[in-house]
Amino acid sequence: MPQGVPDNVPADGLTTRQRRNQPVLAVHTGDGKGKSTAAFGMAMRAWNAGLRVAVFQFVKSAKWKVGEESVMLSLDEVHRQTGNGAPVEWHKMGQGWSWLRANAEHADDHAAAAQAGWAEISRRIADEQHDFYVLDEFTYPLDWGWVDTAEVVATLRDRPGRQHVVITGRRAPSELIAAADLVTEMRKVAHPMDAGRKGQKGIEW
Amino acid sequence: MPQGVPDNVPADGLTTRQRRNQPVLAVHTGDGKGKSTAAFGMAMRAWNAGLRVAVFQFVKSAKWKVGEESVMLSLDEVHRQTGNGAPVEWHKMGQGWSWLRANAEHADDHAAAAQAGWAEISRRIADEQHDFYVLDEFTYPLDWGWVDTAEVVATLRDRPGRQHVVITGRRAPSELIAAADLVTEMRKVAHPMDAGRKGQKGIEW
Repeated sequence: MPQGVPDNVPADGLTTRQRRNQPVLAVHTGDGKGKSTAAFGMAMRAWNAGLRVAVFQFVKSAKWKVGEESVMLSLDEVHRQTGNGAPVEWHKMGQGWSWLRANAEHADDHAAAAQAGWAEISRRIADEQHDFYVLDEFTYPLDWGWVDTAEVVATLRDRPGRQHVVITGRRAPSELIAAADLVTEMRKVAHPMDAGRKGQKGIEW
Repeated sequence: MPQGVPDNVPADGLTTRQRRNQPVLAVHTGDGKGKSTAAFGMAMRAWNAGLRVAVFQFVKSAKWKVGEESVMLSLDEVHRQTGNGAPVEWHKMGQGWSWLRANAEHADDHAAAAQAGWAEISRRIADEQHDFYVLDEFTYPLDWGWVDTAEVVATLRDRPGRQHVVITGRRAPSELIAAADLVTEMRKVAHPMDAGRKGQKGIEW
């Protein structure tokens, strides 16, 4: 489909090239499927373009998305062996963030764990440690007030260099949506769960 | 998010296991981003679960999605070298379907090319050649009447074994939506193109 022609050109004094190279903040929200899946699809593409990818999963259960994790770590291995693509890191809150000494540190405090996750991401953004961040299901700690949305928006708005960020989850706060360059709402039209089916390996996870 | 518990259980006489193992027909439609990207994310996950993946791109231009193609073919290579995952095939209409002797056969006839693509997919479905099919942007030849929607729906409805199919594109015909198990509408909320930016490598393709 013709995606190469912008609808209009803003009077922002930037050249097309400068505008093209601006980092993107994307939000995938809504009640439908595909929010995380599309984010991982974008991460695949970023990896192929040589962007250093880091995924941060803001869920306590690590049961879901093991398939995506396994594929992304396969791509990291491909990079190590062939030089194609780029490094990939995958961090999850579910088992305690991997960079923490004591994995059980926040075992009973989901809010503290989410705050520790954001603090680390914030440091990495300041250091320009990665080129493409997936903050998976990060809208929930924002929605629940565990992590301060205004601080997140300010940090993302002022982030240095050219770091792309994709945030997924339902109920994205309106301040976050206002700050994003690309917001897609995944709307559920029909789902096998409605017909009494449970998820199945390879399809749902 | 709790996705394991169905909202209700139908009186279809099937066990949970039988119901769980039913093949899925998914449609990603709507004007928003992420339709194809989420389909490729699902393909990643299917690959990881050992399902044989085949992608059929129903677009004449092969410029887009080279990143996804490259990653999926990397996964095919990973499978060949390590035995992990499963084989992946990627076919595109843009340069003439690879299984045709004369690539230029349908060079000037997009409708004939789309019909040839569907005829081949239909044969492969009859032979249960793959486990997970992505028919990317296949809604367009349906919408334009190049391929008969009723025939497609009948073939998919009666497909043998356990073959999953994901169809992407805007304006999915209502008969297709009615036949699908999982329909997600990607709705555009905001997009950098609106601010006069062109797509950028690693993000848009």
